[in-house]
Amino acid sequence: MPGKVLVLGIDPGTLVTGFGLVEQDEDGMRILAWSSVSSPSSVPLAERLSRIHAEAVRLMELHRPDEVAVENVFHSKNAKSALTLGHARGVTLLAAAQARIPIFEYAPREVKLSVVGNGNASKQQVASMVGRILDLSCEGLREDESDAVAVAICHLHKRGAKVARGTT
Amino acid sequence: MPGKVLVLGIDPGTLVTGFGLVEQDEDGMRILAWSSVSSPSSVPLAERLSRIHAEAVRLMELHRPDEVAVENVFHSKNAKSALTLGHARGVTLLAAAQARIPIFEYAPREVKLSVVGNGNASKQQVASMVGRILDLSCEGLREDESDAVAVAICHLHKRGAKVARGTT
Repeated sequence: MPGKVLVLGIDPGTLVTGFGLVEQDEDGMRILAWSSVSSPSSVPLAERLSRIHAEAVRLMELHRPDEVAVENVFHSKNAKSALTLGHARGVTLLAAAQARIPIFEYAPREVKLSVVGNGNASKQQVASMVGRILDLSCEGLREDESDAVAVAICHLHKRGAKVARGTT
Repeated sequence: MPGKVLVLGIDPGTLVTGFGLVEQDEDGMRILAWSSVSSPSSVPLAERLSRIHAEAVRLMELHRPDEVAVENVFHSKNAKSALTLGHARGVTLLAAAQARIPIFEYAPREVKLSVVGNGNASKQQVASMVGRILDLSCEGLREDESDAVAVAICHLHKRGAKVARGTT
């Protein structure tokens, strides 16, 4: 694996969007920062999107991640909830495009399979495995933050595999 | 109706997003500008969102509309297309929130009913009526642009009704 890589994982949602920055070098992975933007549904959607975008921009400017990994959801309870979720994803993808950081997308099942080894793992199992991988008490992270970290870890796993395939 | 009002209508879509600026004063409505952002699906989604956001920001900075009217879609062929559409809507709502311009949302049926008088009107009927209302050859506007103008007209209709109700 060539040098050090910093990945910003994002788990978008209009009520809570989680962010997690994970660095990987030859010694392994470590978490550098995490945060989440929560807004009650009483806050107008556009204002919630503005907060999510501002936090994504802040993290990208401060930490300058090499790559961004975003959770992708193609199935949803219904079209209305998918549309709403799309708004939050849209402003995080926009922030990455504006910062010219490459974006990688992973389905929730792919993330769970990569992190826990089981595509149907519960959120608790994901949080617990994230804590174990990063040698971190998972009590410090909110659910959406550990989901964001999980997306970053998933990307680092896939990325490592891609690099490995590329060099053999 | 108090003075002059300038409304930016937006018809969001990830492949084509239409914009239309309509001004209303005591003499009636007139169209000030229109544009659209088209990107082939071969352009990465984040880049397409970046172009849509940039055009929304440009129009808002240049024309300083008083209000923004955006088409809202709660029904969709499927969750995947709703999610994708949500991305485009999200970045236009973000641009309005960043510019601190009040946002109003209208369902397509509401727009057709307000502009054509028929909630099931075809796109051609909408374009034709937009042309008649604004005393404009509709040949100059692309379909998504006249849809955006229609959302602005719908908002001005509803807005006038609200003002009228408020003053009686």
